[in-house]
Amino acid sequence: MPEAATFPLFPHRHLLGIQHLSPSDIVSLLDRADAAVAVSRQSEKKTSALRGRTQINLFYEASTRTQSSFELAGKRLGADVMNMSVASSSVKKGETLIDTAMTLNAMRPDILIIRHAAAGAAALLAQKVGCSVVNAGDGAHEHPTQALLDALTIRRAKGDLSKLIVAICGDVLHSRVARSNILLLNALGARVRVIASSTLLPSGIHQMSVDVFNRMEDGLKDADVVMMLRLQRERMAGAFVPSVREYFHFFGLDEAKLRLAKPDALVMHPGPMNRGVEIASEIADGPQSVIQEQVEMGVAVRMAVMQALLDPRRNEAAA
Amino acid sequence: MPEAATFPLFPHRHLLGIQHLSPSDIVSLLDRADAAVAVSRQSEKKTSALRGRTQINLFYEASTRTQSSFELAGKRLGADVMNMSVASSSVKKGETLIDTAMTLNAMRPDILIIRHAAAGAAALLAQKVGCSVVNAGDGAHEHPTQALLDALTIRRAKGDLSKLIVAICGDVLHSRVARSNILLLNALGARVRVIASSTLLPSGIHQMSVDVFNRMEDGLKDADVVMMLRLQRERMAGAFVPSVREYFHFFGLDEAKLRLAKPDALVMHPGPMNRGVEIASEIADGPQSVIQEQVEMGVAVRMAVMQALLDPRRNEAAA
Amino acid sequence: MPEAATFPLFPHRHLLGIQHLSPSDIVSLLDRADAAVAVSRQSEKKTSALRGRTQINLFYEASTRTQSSFELAGKRLGADVMNMSVASSSVKKGETLIDTAMTLNAMRPDILIIRHAAAGAAALLAQKVGCSVVNAGDGAHEHPTQALLDALTIRRAKGDLSKLIVAICGDVLHSRVARSNILLLNALGARVRVIASSTLLPSGIHQMSVDVFNRMEDGLKDADVVMMLRLQRERMAGAFVPSVREYFHFFGLDEAKLRLAKPDALVMHPGPMNRGVEIASEIADGPQSVIQEQVEMGVAVRMAVMQALLDPRRNEAAA
Repeated sequence: MPEAATFPLFPHRHLLGIQHLSPSDIVSLLDRADAAVAVSRQSEKKTSALRGRTQINLFYEASTRTQSSFELAGKRLGADVMNMSVASSSVKKGETLIDTAMTLNAMRPDILIIRHAAAGAAALLAQKVGCSVVNAGDGAHEHPTQALLDALTIRRAKGDLSKLIVAICGDVLHSRVARSNILLLNALGARVRVIASSTLLPSGIHQMSVDVFNRMEDGLKDADVVMMLRLQRERMAGAFVPSVREYFHFFGLDEAKLRLAKPDALVMHPGPMNRGVEIASEIADGPQSVIQEQVEMGVAVRMAVMQALLDPRRNEAAA
Repeated sequence: MPEAATFPLFPHRHLLGIQHLSPSDIVSLLDRADAAVAVSRQSEKKTSALRGRTQINLFYEASTRTQSSFELAGKRLGADVMNMSVASSSVKKGETLIDTAMTLNAMRPDILIIRHAAAGAAALLAQKVGCSVVNAGDGAHEHPTQALLDALTIRRAKGDLSKLIVAICGDVLHSRVARSNILLLNALGARVRVIASSTLLPSGIHQMSVDVFNRMEDGLKDADVVMMLRLQRERMAGAFVPSVREYFHFFGLDEAKLRLAKPDALVMHPGPMNRGVEIASEIADGPQSVIQEQVEMGVAVRMAVMQALLDPRRNEAAA
Repeated sequence: MPEAATFPLFPHRHLLGIQHLSPSDIVSLLDRADAAVAVSRQSEKKTSALRGRTQINLFYEASTRTQSSFELAGKRLGADVMNMSVASSSVKKGETLIDTAMTLNAMRPDILIIRHAAAGAAALLAQKVGCSVVNAGDGAHEHPTQALLDALTIRRAKGDLSKLIVAICGDVLHSRVARSNILLLNALGARVRVIASSTLLPSGIHQMSVDVFNRMEDGLKDADVVMMLRLQRERMAGAFVPSVREYFHFFGLDEAKLRLAKPDALVMHPGPMNRGVEIASEIADGPQSVIQEQVEMGVAVRMAVMQALLDPRRNEAAA
């Protein structure tokens, strides 16, 4: 992995959302991540970039996938990683989040990775603590490392994102993944489409730079990338929960629908998948799927982000 | 961090309670901890003092704060740390504790950190296993590292403890923190006051070297340190649970009550706080509060304790 | 610990069951484990054999003992170890196991340790992932590292296994431990007896190379090793659950029954023990018991297995 000094100093201490990043910030993180991919493909997947640094994973929502990815990223950078999987039951009010964070902060971590059900939780923490904060998903707001790993996956397969049509399909309403992706893809000049029934679209969607479609048949045409979202039935109120069968019929990605996109279109999914709901198994496992590569890029992106935020040049400047 | 050899060999293999420590044992641990503070304030917070040593955290009661503190302390000393968070449901009889401990012992750990609801659990283990044992809280008995971190916090702010008046306020009955603190403060010559309603005082309190007060207004006068305890309502039987409002009125530390102590009195709390119950938020976050520093000193004290117990000179002497 | 190159290249990438191992495979693992014992007996119990390698413990069934043993084994070899304790509730269908495994696999681990309630789960994973897989217990099928650690314990106490009579006693029906032990002991030429009531014997037992006894009094005679099994009442359907008192009377190992075996017979138990059910406390803690040594050998065997599977010569051959 190249030395941090190979890259320009990243101008932020926290990664709270794509909304705060400039296009060049994004490109610099993707370049760092590209370089980090090689570390995990070696037999000895270990650098000393963050040796002696303390990373705390503070997950108020369970997430096998994201927490594991951050844990491995930190360990491969040589950091000491501590997991705090907080049962949601022990969190009753916002105040408690702050007290927990202040307590952890007093233990002098270098970086705090937080997932929380409340939008803005990561930003709130960043104001209170002395260390770097990474938003690993805050309510329906943002999930910036997911958008970065998606962009890295696309860029490695297709090159320059500015020439691409990306269709984001499904439960956009409940998806911080969608939101962060829309922001990032717009920043890099891609043309973003959103495909969902009107009940699964957030009210502000028409203010974002996206083309909105209600039918897969319309929105998938000529797409370079088809990004499926997880149907988050657990977040839906009774009356609006679509039946799985109906949902799959209209919005599930199957062979017929995929044929409408470009023949070499990438199929993506942030996981975990509901097979047979938003995506057919043969598509998830098919030749156009890059779902496994997304997971691999996730580790690389998180290594890149943590190394960028904890760049030792920042301390020297402060000293 | 200074080499272990800078300090005299600590004369105990276990840390089971303050009751077993001489004043010079305590001072030597505080001196070591003072030196350990610097490690966590560095960018690379890592020593190799316990490299290749195995630390097992065996927590029968959940404790985010204490377990994290021990985990980070071990990792920063270079130890391999393994957490065993035992659901209290899986423990049915004392015998099981011993069998679990014997099994862990056979895996050749160097140090076992134990928290258990039964007074004496740590001492029982220490008789059975071949490694060092640290009591991280045993029922309402002792919590020695908490008392050490409190003493370190006070000493760094106020110097010599022998000249100080320390008021311990609130739910003394259910508090191993109070018990360990009374023992330690007495050992170092501080004058200790206990302030609580008679229902929240243990029956033996008048046999300890403390001045007992039933009203904050009487006990806080001229105090150098005001140590609030967590109201442990979860440990109280129905009839005796005070109402939160009434409790705060009589025993909660607010501005008016704090004004009775010395103007530069330290405000302490072992956490987690019940804001608005035993302490007002503006006091917890106010200029006299050293609650965050207590947490920081916690990591340093635990580093010091583990390094003292696992002093390599002890092995050489044995060999 | 001797260099990997001291031992012949182990001819398997996975350890799925004893059934796939030749006698020389088994002996070579025992030889490696014998050498690994010394590592955990040192003060600095750390090698760099697996430095930078990623080990993931994927436990679908809770197991304090086995998971801890694998975790310590990995850490002492210098690997980065990540625990994934999956609540059984989150697993609904086999498909999910595969998706979880594929996701983990994309994070480029070197070795995956899996425990699962379904027989064949480890073998299924091994077909899907690119890394080494170790079966840490799959249903009532196999638990190969347990059989290896039992064999190592016996060999260190008694030498060559081919001259020994080993009696496996108790709940054979529900025991993957019994199955793996029968296969291994047969492979090394020991004479294996099985002692259980007919209701606790699997239907295929008479096809295996064992002598079957229904009474302890008959089967223990002249045994060199008495291997007790845990009575797994939780796996039994209502009608067939024996009463504890009756079970102990007929099948519990007490002093009178043990006297039937050879005077220096070893007493073994894979743990956790039901004291007073399958074994009397005084026997469990008595002079013939090697139950604690089994646990110690467990760490050594797991170190040996992981080092054998991840032998760097395998990568060189592939490159």
